[in-house]
Amino acid sequence: MNSIITGTGSYIPNIIKKNIDFIDKQFYGDKNEPFDSSNKTIIEKFKAITGIDERRYLEPEMQNSDAATIASKIAIEESGIDIETIDQIIFAHNFGDIRHNDNQSDMLPSLASRVKHLLRIKNPNCVAYDVIFGCPGWVQGLIQADNFIQSGMAKICLVIGAETLSRVVDPHDRDSMIYADGAGACIVEKGKGEGKGILSHAAQSFTYDEASYLFFGKSNKIIPNINTRYIKMYGRKIYEFALNNVPNAMKLALDKSGLDISNIKKILIHQANEKMDEAIIHRFYRLYKSKVPEGIMPMSIHKLGNSSVATVPTLLDLVLKNKIDQQQINAGDAIILASVGAGMHINAIVYQY
Amino acid sequence: MNSIITGTGSYIPNIIKKNIDFIDKQFYGDKNEPFDSSNKTIIEKFKAITGIDERRYLEPEMQNSDAATIASKIAIEESGIDIETIDQIIFAHNFGDIRHNDNQSDMLPSLASRVKHLLRIKNPNCVAYDVIFGCPGWVQGLIQADNFIQSGMAKICLVIGAETLSRVVDPHDRDSMIYADGAGACIVEKGKGEGKGILSHAAQSFTYDEASYLFFGKSNKIIPNINTRYIKMYGRKIYEFALNNVPNAMKLALDKSGLDISNIKKILIHQANEKMDEAIIHRFYRLYKSKVPEGIMPMSIHKLGNSSVATVPTLLDLVLKNKIDQQQINAGDAIILASVGAGMHINAIVYQY
Repeated sequence: MNSIITGTGSYIPNIIKKNIDFIDKQFYGDKNEPFDSSNKTIIEKFKAITGIDERRYLEPEMQNSDAATIASKIAIEESGIDIETIDQIIFAHNFGDIRHNDNQSDMLPSLASRVKHLLRIKNPNCVAYDVIFGCPGWVQGLIQADNFIQSGMAKICLVIGAETLSRVVDPHDRDSMIYADGAGACIVEKGKGEGKGILSHAAQSFTYDEASYLFFGKSNKIIPNINTRYIKMYGRKIYEFALNNVPNAMKLALDKSGLDISNIKKILIHQANEKMDEAIIHRFYRLYKSKVPEGIMPMSIHKLGNSSVATVPTLLDLVLKNKIDQQQINAGDAIILASVGAGMHINAIVYQY
Repeated sequence: MNSIITGTGSYIPNIIKKNIDFIDKQFYGDKNEPFDSSNKTIIEKFKAITGIDERRYLEPEMQNSDAATIASKIAIEESGIDIETIDQIIFAHNFGDIRHNDNQSDMLPSLASRVKHLLRIKNPNCVAYDVIFGCPGWVQGLIQADNFIQSGMAKICLVIGAETLSRVVDPHDRDSMIYADGAGACIVEKGKGEGKGILSHAAQSFTYDEASYLFFGKSNKIIPNINTRYIKMYGRKIYEFALNNVPNAMKLALDKSGLDISNIKKILIHQANEKMDEAIIHRFYRLYKSKVPEGIMPMSIHKLGNSSVATVPTLLDLVLKNKIDQQQINAGDAIILASVGAGMHINAIVYQY
């Protein structure tokens, strides 16, 4: 028996932040040096590499767990399940709830507890926990849910990925333009019969040299007596790491599934950087000496940016609901969900619709 | 086949904070009111209820993941495993790494990634993630490890519980005296044969009314323009909640195990409050119409305080190593590990030595 996704939902925040909105920012390099280039040039280069035109920021009065609850309600409604039958709520994030204009992560109680509370679920046997696994957290949550279903510990799980990166960005770091907010969720259930649902998965953690490729660090602008830390990354190292390792992890998962590369109709990959994602997919197909099929990789990054754990579940929800131009998933399609991020962690799931 | 604990380790910080060290604190109530009682009286009452004489604080130059790494090394060495054979590292905490005199939780990268890095593990197939589940996080991590072992996804897991509550306490809240720092870890492996190891478990999340019995809130002393938040609790509500629900959850686990109450030789329960723990055990035995056996419940709270996720694994390690007076676990003993905390979550494991 396989684990089947029976409902998906997402919350796309309403505040649109365009590239032009960064034109007056004071950007500095990671050695606190000002740049020679104008912000206009910085933004053009940024757009050319990442593909990002605009991104969404969560409404100031909301927190991460609020957005997650909306996404969860949609997924639950679509699945048609009774909320009191959920066995596990798995909430992937990396920064907890952070209030607007605050800098403290709040995970007391855990965000999964908050969502369960907001959903008004009464059943105490619905266990609600958070998982911290960098950007691949939602995919990992789905792997854990599959594991609970396989072992008989659960029949129905709610798996959430939601993040408010806008609340941990350094305004003096040009990388701040990458980050966005979002929330996605799915209901995954024990399926009847074989052949559909989660066929296989793979997960890896590279920490020997790579643990701090993404890290929490001080502002690129020196501000005396201020020690606030923000999300920071070594972009070049991450790019090379991802190209060298993500295709292999995807291959691990695909080979376990028993499917041929030609069976794969869509690859939904973490929306980190358009050029990087394209290069990963090219290397992946090269491992099978195949050409990249046209339209294999739906993208949401142009309008939604990189919302960490939320990119894959929101993208899945948008494609399933025909909200991405010329992208569809049809009955019988096999797809791959893949992610890479802070840790550094990589994972992939082969899923049969 | 059952999951067997083959090594345990703990790190007990070296800084001893005695009750008398709180004598000059300015304590206020949760409505910011000063207390009528003197600090001497407050401390005496505190000691009478909680049993706490002193607690440990982590050395200023260390962070949570450093303490966790030391505990992990001891557990790994004791188990005799090759570090490159660990399949999953599960790190339970609730506040990440917090630097001394800082107020930001840092989980970028995840603490499990940091420990894997510090242990110099190379194998990328060792997956390292964090779980947020209130004080019962370590017990839940062990349940998840058991699940991975049962489903075949893992053979060897490192399960860590470590916390630095000293870095999230409000110095103007008398409850700050409860909280402590600590780190505990174990290696759990796929066992050969039946009858030993994890026999059964139960976990519950009560969120309908109870989600915010522990929460992140402002100081009890009004300090203008300072919005720093700290660990806060409704102690009376938690006390009543725990008494009403923990015994039942323990019974759920014990009844699943097939063992009789008379088989249980030790109960290692989250060190939250001595009077509360005693009352829980009395109610638990009352459910079986039995008398509480003498010495059934080893306690470390007097000297170590409440270190959240770390209490159960450190207590287990201390008892196994004969470091708690007149307390031992012998071959053939069945024990219960149980916890309750923020979420509100409760869990219990029945384990056969």
